[in-house]
Amino acid sequence: MNQKDPKIPKIAVIRMALYAKHLGLLDNQGIRVVSSVELADLCGVNPAQIRKDLAYFGQFGTRGLGYPVPELSLSIKKILGTNRIWHLGLVGVGNLGRALLRHSQFAEQGFVFTAAFDLDPQVVGTLVSGVKVSHVDQMKRMIRERSPFDIGVLAVRPEEAQSVADRLKDSGIRAILNFTPMVLALGPDVYVENVDFTVRLHLLCYSMTHGSDVTQQHPR
Amino acid sequence: MNQKDPKIPKIAVIRMALYAKHLGLLDNQGIRVVSSVELADLCGVNPAQIRKDLAYFGQFGTRGLGYPVPELSLSIKKILGTNRIWHLGLVGVGNLGRALLRHSQFAEQGFVFTAAFDLDPQVVGTLVSGVKVSHVDQMKRMIRERSPFDIGVLAVRPEEAQSVADRLKDSGIRAILNFTPMVLALGPDVYVENVDFTVRLHLLCYSMTHGSDVTQQHPR
Repeated sequence: MNQKDPKIPKIAVIRMALYAKHLGLLDNQGIRVVSSVELADLCGVNPAQIRKDLAYFGQFGTRGLGYPVPELSLSIKKILGTNRIWHLGLVGVGNLGRALLRHSQFAEQGFVFTAAFDLDPQVVGTLVSGVKVSHVDQMKRMIRERSPFDIGVLAVRPEEAQSVADRLKDSGIRAILNFTPMVLALGPDVYVENVDFTVRLHLLCYSMTHGSDVTQQHPR
Repeated sequence: MNQKDPKIPKIAVIRMALYAKHLGLLDNQGIRVVSSVELADLCGVNPAQIRKDLAYFGQFGTRGLGYPVPELSLSIKKILGTNRIWHLGLVGVGNLGRALLRHSQFAEQGFVFTAAFDLDPQVVGTLVSGVKVSHVDQMKRMIRERSPFDIGVLAVRPEEAQSVADRLKDSGIRAILNFTPMVLALGPDVYVENVDFTVRLHLLCYSMTHGSDVTQQHPR
């Protein structure tokens, strides 16, 4: 198994994350074995693709017997680095931030909010979904002294996005899940994933307007 | 201009949506002209890529003078089909659904919630962010009689996702923005975009664990 092989395409890793999610959901349902056809169907890809993607990372399952769900789930989590709890720190406890703190999907997949930050004196000091909201001016000190989280989750207003991201980077945070519409300029030391609802909507509109599917999910 | 040219790669359309978003933000700030270098920087791509992507759709801007922001913004919106208001219908008025109804980014980019549905008798009949919540059993009739929206926004529990998506399709809805972790099986008549936070988190974890960037946003 050689996860750092430069010949592993990014898209294969992205699909591994999709397989991990669906194997986790099957595992939670107590399902022990899944065929490559069934798993492919759940993930919206074809079975040959799954076999090809897995082959980048090793030998999994036995031909004709399907994949053992808990074992494959754990193997893929090890490859992804998600066979452990990752701690999240939210910045921006507005409507969206609150919804994220309360969203059950995070914890179910091993992502736990352990810190939250805001500016608003009405919000600072309150508990949301069991997480105490601290003032954003305390963030750097808290991260440096106690490393309360691994990944910063950005749900601030667009105009604050870059400056808050800079503060996260300056405090030593290396990964940001960005819910703002801004593209962050942070250099190669910080990994950023953007969750942009409106770009996705534009693609639905293009598909409907032109009758030409540019969405990411292939029809099933 | 030939938007249906099969040689236009999907990824070019996806980037056009990104350009549309940033040109819209610049336009809102009253900025009249942007160089390809500045626009590229905002979008996190290189200037040659923007020129190449735009060339699929026509001739825009004058070399050396930059792009006229309002004109290019409108041209790209016309290409994407987003030079009009699109109406959204939310299904699932929980924490996330409420946050989406209140999220200013949608309306700022021409996406307006005009209907919302839930099962919970405590929620049905209430107003959230000016939108009246109807019972999900009224959905099909409302869509068939009044076509209150173009795009269904799915924020229900995972176990309800497929059945609600089936009801949207059965009612004539052709596009779904899916906030559940499930991959929907709807066939080629419905366009689906998935907004999956946890897959994005898995990719951040892989990048941090292996020191190998598999995120979508290239470092800036």
